[in-house]
Amino acid sequence: VTELSDTLFSAPEMTAVFSGSVFVQRMLDFEAALARAQAVAGVVPQRAADDIAAQCRVEQFDVHALFQEAAQAGTPAIPLVRRLSDLVGADARGLVHWGATSQDVIDTATVLQMREGLGVLIAGLTGLASACAVLAERHRQTPMPGRTLLQHAVPITFGLKAARWLAMTVRLIRRLGDLREGLAVQLGGAAGTLAAMGDHGVQVMELVARALDLRVPELPWHAERDRIADVAGALGTVAGAMGKIATDVVLLAQTEVGEASPAAPGTSSTMPQKRNPVEATHALACSRLAIGLVSALLAAMVQEHERGTGGWQAEWEAVPELFRFTSGAVRWTERAISGLDVDAVRMRANVDSADGLIMAEALTMMLASKIGRDEAYRVVQRISDQVAHTHIPLREAALADPQLRDSLSAWEVDRTLEVEAYRGSTDAFIDRALNAFRALQGSTREPR
Amino acid sequence: VTELSDTLFSAPEMTAVFSGSVFVQRMLDFEAALARAQAVAGVVPQRAADDIAAQCRVEQFDVHALFQEAAQAGTPAIPLVRRLSDLVGADARGLVHWGATSQDVIDTATVLQMREGLGVLIAGLTGLASACAVLAERHRQTPMPGRTLLQHAVPITFGLKAARWLAMTVRLIRRLGDLREGLAVQLGGAAGTLAAMGDHGVQVMELVARALDLRVPELPWHAERDRIADVAGALGTVAGAMGKIATDVVLLAQTEVGEASPAAPGTSSTMPQKRNPVEATHALACSRLAIGLVSALLAAMVQEHERGTGGWQAEWEAVPELFRFTSGAVRWTERAISGLDVDAVRMRANVDSADGLIMAEALTMMLASKIGRDEAYRVVQRISDQVAHTHIPLREAALADPQLRDSLSAWEVDRTLEVEAYRGSTDAFIDRALNAFRALQGSTREPR
Amino acid sequence: VTELSDTLFSAPEMTAVFSGSVFVQRMLDFEAALARAQAVAGVVPQRAADDIAAQCRVEQFDVHALFQEAAQAGTPAIPLVRRLSDLVGADARGLVHWGATSQDVIDTATVLQMREGLGVLIAGLTGLASACAVLAERHRQTPMPGRTLLQHAVPITFGLKAARWLAMTVRLIRRLGDLREGLAVQLGGAAGTLAAMGDHGVQVMELVARALDLRVPELPWHAERDRIADVAGALGTVAGAMGKIATDVVLLAQTEVGEASPAAPGTSSTMPQKRNPVEATHALACSRLAIGLVSALLAAMVQEHERGTGGWQAEWEAVPELFRFTSGAVRWTERAISGLDVDAVRMRANVDSADGLIMAEALTMMLASKIGRDEAYRVVQRISDQVAHTHIPLREAALADPQLRDSLSAWEVDRTLEVEAYRGSTDAFIDRALNAFRALQGSTREPR
Amino acid sequence: VTELSDTLFSAPEMTAVFSGSVFVQRMLDFEAALARAQAVAGVVPQRAADDIAAQCRVEQFDVHALFQEAAQAGTPAIPLVRRLSDLVGADARGLVHWGATSQDVIDTATVLQMREGLGVLIAGLTGLASACAVLAERHRQTPMPGRTLLQHAVPITFGLKAARWLAMTVRLIRRLGDLREGLAVQLGGAAGTLAAMGDHGVQVMELVARALDLRVPELPWHAERDRIADVAGALGTVAGAMGKIATDVVLLAQTEVGEASPAAPGTSSTMPQKRNPVEATHALACSRLAIGLVSALLAAMVQEHERGTGGWQAEWEAVPELFRFTSGAVRWTERAISGLDVDAVRMRANVDSADGLIMAEALTMMLASKIGRDEAYRVVQRISDQVAHTHIPLREAALADPQLRDSLSAWEVDRTLEVEAYRGSTDAFIDRALNAFRALQGSTREPR
Repeated sequence: VTELSDTLFSAPEMTAVFSGSVFVQRMLDFEAALARAQAVAGVVPQRAADDIAAQCRVEQFDVHALFQEAAQAGTPAIPLVRRLSDLVGADARGLVHWGATSQDVIDTATVLQMREGLGVLIAGLTGLASACAVLAERHRQTPMPGRTLLQHAVPITFGLKAARWLAMTVRLIRRLGDLREGLAVQLGGAAGTLAAMGDHGVQVMELVARALDLRVPELPWHAERDRIADVAGALGTVAGAMGKIATDVVLLAQTEVGEASPAAPGTSSTMPQKRNPVEATHALACSRLAIGLVSALLAAMVQEHERGTGGWQAEWEAVPELFRFTSGAVRWTERAISGLDVDAVRMRANVDSADGLIMAEALTMMLASKIGRDEAYRVVQRISDQVAHTHIPLREAALADPQLRDSLSAWEVDRTLEVEAYRGSTDAFIDRALNAFRALQGSTREPR
Repeated sequence: VTELSDTLFSAPEMTAVFSGSVFVQRMLDFEAALARAQAVAGVVPQRAADDIAAQCRVEQFDVHALFQEAAQAGTPAIPLVRRLSDLVGADARGLVHWGATSQDVIDTATVLQMREGLGVLIAGLTGLASACAVLAERHRQTPMPGRTLLQHAVPITFGLKAARWLAMTVRLIRRLGDLREGLAVQLGGAAGTLAAMGDHGVQVMELVARALDLRVPELPWHAERDRIADVAGALGTVAGAMGKIATDVVLLAQTEVGEASPAAPGTSSTMPQKRNPVEATHALACSRLAIGLVSALLAAMVQEHERGTGGWQAEWEAVPELFRFTSGAVRWTERAISGLDVDAVRMRANVDSADGLIMAEALTMMLASKIGRDEAYRVVQRISDQVAHTHIPLREAALADPQLRDSLSAWEVDRTLEVEAYRGSTDAFIDRALNAFRALQGSTREPR
Repeated sequence: VTELSDTLFSAPEMTAVFSGSVFVQRMLDFEAALARAQAVAGVVPQRAADDIAAQCRVEQFDVHALFQEAAQAGTPAIPLVRRLSDLVGADARGLVHWGATSQDVIDTATVLQMREGLGVLIAGLTGLASACAVLAERHRQTPMPGRTLLQHAVPITFGLKAARWLAMTVRLIRRLGDLREGLAVQLGGAAGTLAAMGDHGVQVMELVARALDLRVPELPWHAERDRIADVAGALGTVAGAMGKIATDVVLLAQTEVGEASPAAPGTSSTMPQKRNPVEATHALACSRLAIGLVSALLAAMVQEHERGTGGWQAEWEAVPELFRFTSGAVRWTERAISGLDVDAVRMRANVDSADGLIMAEALTMMLASKIGRDEAYRVVQRISDQVAHTHIPLREAALADPQLRDSLSAWEVDRTLEVEAYRGSTDAFIDRALNAFRALQGSTREPR
Repeated sequence: VTELSDTLFSAPEMTAVFSGSVFVQRMLDFEAALARAQAVAGVVPQRAADDIAAQCRVEQFDVHALFQEAAQAGTPAIPLVRRLSDLVGADARGLVHWGATSQDVIDTATVLQMREGLGVLIAGLTGLASACAVLAERHRQTPMPGRTLLQHAVPITFGLKAARWLAMTVRLIRRLGDLREGLAVQLGGAAGTLAAMGDHGVQVMELVARALDLRVPELPWHAERDRIADVAGALGTVAGAMGKIATDVVLLAQTEVGEASPAAPGTSSTMPQKRNPVEATHALACSRLAIGLVSALLAAMVQEHERGTGGWQAEWEAVPELFRFTSGAVRWTERAISGLDVDAVRMRANVDSADGLIMAEALTMMLASKIGRDEAYRVVQRISDQVAHTHIPLREAALADPQLRDSLSAWEVDRTLEVEAYRGSTDAFIDRALNAFRALQGSTREPR
């Protein structure tokens, strides 16, 4: 069902960045930059460089045929160089791709795609962060059950939950931004010496990097793939983070919970009442698919000597797919959060359900200040068990407990069980997350 | 570079099996079988069933539009059923997909594709086995170095190596054949009760299974995905096995080893002498990509209640991709082995290189029969160290060692160092592997 | 926190099977079987074989020291053979481990441990199946909401859910049983020729296999690891399946759902009311840990020539850990299901919650039989939306809808909305799953 | 064989950092810091805080029993708090762990272990970098074959290869250093509000962070695990990088290549001549094991609401194991490189083997400057094919080719085929890598 993948498992912008024709254009961008750099360095004549650069337009190439030839040749760079050589004049023909190797053009093209791809992810995550920030502010005081191991713990507010999503998203954006800044050109020639460029190798490498606005590496990194692995790990983290947020959405939308529902629910082929959280579900599918690729890319780091057999080639599929799936995870999570229909009344009702037991910790802490925590824990546990079995509300059970009443007045009990009062640092935490987002927005440089 | 994937990372036949239009046709095959089964069971009128079945041709469907709608609806089954309902007459309209759920049609369609896909893999592996069998027979007596931890160990024959590949391939074919036999239909309705079919559920399930030539499961398996996981694990094993064989090919083709080379080597964009083992390299890339998907599919088994959020949907991408990558691994390995250009002279030369040290075990064992293995090991280790440092051949060093000569005559030493004589069960092992292949060929039923 | 792993992430029986001393004993079992087989074949004197076999008791070995030496030597077999040689008399000394290689003893020992480990898993799964069978029978008629994408779909019974768990568990047991039957001995000598055994290789291999009650392989499989990968894949499937069941338990135990709760709930350090589903949570942790190892083992299949560098050695850790984590998943799931405290009243209440919307499909199907499914779907969808917004129960909303009332009488509506009547093949499905379990129990041979 | 894991698959220092007793001590460090912070904030009396802090010594705890209880309780924090409460005086008893939750203590303890663990890795990588730097300098001018797809490409120097390893290792150290700087405390109470600390939550969080020398997070991150995933991804990159270096070592040590050999080779149980590269092999095993855990940790990010079921708990095993395996990979790679016995004579001989074909690119480039690259490629390819078939050396074949001799003189051919002259930017690249290492050494702050 791979045709499904463009609509379900990727953001359209990312599919575009990693399309075959964009890949070919990025390879041509490298060839053009190389020729021009070599002209500056005096390695090739300026006129030849101009001729080469002028032909570096994907429109002149049959992308499909080129990929067909790649299977036989071993890499798509070989037919590309052949075709480009055919396009230029006789004087330039022999100077195309001078001193470079297939890996130089493929790796640098991939790095350029990765830069664009990181931009797409950052834009998507920024949209998600904005949506989270709106929710954090709007629902700053909307109580809901905090849940650990899917059991009621203590009350939180929905704004706090959104603020946690927000803070994580801001961290992800920062990390991707750092990675985008650090992307480096690849240029080493056949085995990383740039021997065919004589003394001009480093100069050409620097000029190509500048032309493409990439970093200059210490030296070529043909078979040292930590740079790719770093990006893969970061995208895996993004995918996992989206899975966490999407899971929360799915759980909030459960029939029995009903605290939030999708603005654009999916339907069922037979059940007219269904309001399926399809956006979050798509996000979870994308998240799972992305994570599977990270280990493939880490395992692919083991590349032999100056160029690997299989590890490098697997990247050609795994890197684009990882970007695509991750973008799908971000896109669908962003949509799920942006369109989330929050039911504050139901949240409050859920807090109050379960006979008030969600306030057991609050009661314990108050009682602990009088009789010590261990004893308080025992007393409230006894009361809680009674509540669980009899469904007498916690307030009534507490007021009826002689040991508790020895220490706490009815007024104290009532004040303690007030949900709104048991918020601790909720407000401060929300502010800290919002501030982190504002700081990010203030600092964001335009992508290069 | 995902367009590359059709030429590099998949067998064309497998790409065809998992194309979007075949997927839609398989969904329609299910709908047709369902309608007819329900007619037999008296759940829907025969006339309506005939009308429905007649429209179940993918040519009537806009596959691309259908997948676009799937993103919104949550599954491709929903727009499919809608469109099919539009195609049939008024009497049949309301009876399309009667009592079934999206998961029934998608899962059964996927199972049908998997059956075809297993057939493609079995065919490819059978081709590989044949090629291995030819090599096992032809090179039954061709000596080459056995290598452990990439160090010379003792001599083997290339036929033995091919026989080991063969025996593994035969085991893989058997396993895939068993899985193909066991594939089961999915039919459970909204939550696995077939409630909408009243008392006819089991009967309809059996009839649909028979029509599609699939097994009848104990009960619907919507969220119990062990059947999918079993297939995924088996394909992962196939992919890993191909990686092993392809690695051996790459290592045999190394410049310093030179024992085999590709019939259709890849070229380099700058180095005219290169004869790259591109087929084996493609196989290794496919193998790595396939393995990454297995853990994604195992992790996706954790599906909630009666239908999962994300786990199931991830299968829509991961199952086809796993079949595609695995088919690529099989295809390229088959090509690499079929076209392998074996250099028996170089194999023999490599056996004799390293100053004869490859026969150190033989010498040890012979000496051990005289002075015990521990002492023999020490003596031959001392001689081996001398050989390694002085490059005096093992034979000469042995003959010059007084302790050894106390126990072994020159004639005995010579006989012991004869490579051809130190073959043990090589022939018997090759025969056993060939027999296993013949037994498989004898037993193979035609795929259903 | 690896000390935690013995109590949290493994079954104690499995920890025992894969302990260091058991591993050493299994290596010694191989050496004893080898010596005896060689005596029968006339390769070594009977007296020497008896001497060797008599010393093959782990009590004579310092396991810790042996593993320390293994790091330097490269394998634990080398110091083991050295020590065993020291233990036997002078006549037998040189005949220990005759013609075998480290991989023979380590692989065969691991296979023996795997056989025991599969037995532990089968026993655990059989306990789980029994617990599921009890629930399937007991709650055959206990209605609960069927849930897809965590939304109410149509009613099921809890017995049906348990029957689905049961059928899956039975399939897992069958698969593990098949694998246990197929385990094969490893014996090939240095590079798979058994050259040091002259003409007796195959005979010795068969005798060793018989002595250890293992299969005779076609030929040695040193670097062909599909046998290990098959076991790994199956354990991954078991782990994923446990994850599915444990997830269902966690979801049933949610505060808002409350349909089942743990018999032995975990506590909280601060919240006295908490009843955490810790057994299911442990099962989920074990499941995740196991799945991660499967891809490691598949990737490790790529072993070079006659013995791998890294792939084989990684198995020494990954295989025991995979068995341990999988056993933990089985153990905790079995406990969670065996001790599950089912609240049938809450299940029924949940069915009736959500204003009866869970019966929307039933109403649609009934109406469809009168006015066609498409029109019926539209009518019931309209009614369902009204219910969702107004919280008027479905029955009242349906009865108030003029278009519906044109086709259905009040009596028909009431009959249609009867939860107990909308069960379809539930009973038959439960019976089929129970029968599969009974058939398994009838067929089970005693483990060898 | 898990006992093997301490000697084979981990560095002893790392095993120590993640021992059970260190984990308990780190939990106690948290409890002590919490109590003191709360005393400063006025939440608990100073005297109680002092009492608590005084008891926070692991010697007072039965680690084994504590972990046994953890299985029942669900976390090791619960029995820890219970035992600590028993140890302190009556006045402090109820104030232990005040307002904190199990996750606070476990996560913060793990973060502290991770900090130490990162230090161990950085130290190991620094040792490796030093060893690489020595080799890069010493073998700056030692020619060897550059190899792509394991085929000879063009000459490089061994110093360049070591410099590439070095540059990668320096990048890894920088990344781990950044991560170590960013580690944050966890403190949120039951569900992330610190409700039980009233208005003092943020202040206490800041004080605890300062006491433990950790960062203050924006807000508690109980179920947002990107911080853990970032570390996991980085360790996966380290593990993959070690796999790359170790693979190079194994390949250099191949019998047919013989360019480097281990200082401490492993032996064989039967072959006295074997010099197995066991250190590199161990490194590869560790690398594979580590990588498998990364995907487990990424998948574990999907944690529900305010605390996960299974994902969090899986970290308790996966994080220590990941650190251990990664440390094993670093340790064994460092040993393999530090003790590498380089054979410069063999390297040079290998360059000259294959009839000089390794200089085909050089000849092509020189000829290309006369007749264009395409034509030159064709000419040299023709000559190369002749060399490959006849084994006439490249020099002779070139001099005998009329078309080539039309453009190049014998003197030009000889100059072109000079290996030492075809080095391009090799020296500059080595310098750049060495400078990066020196810059790192200059900038390194002492670990906190």
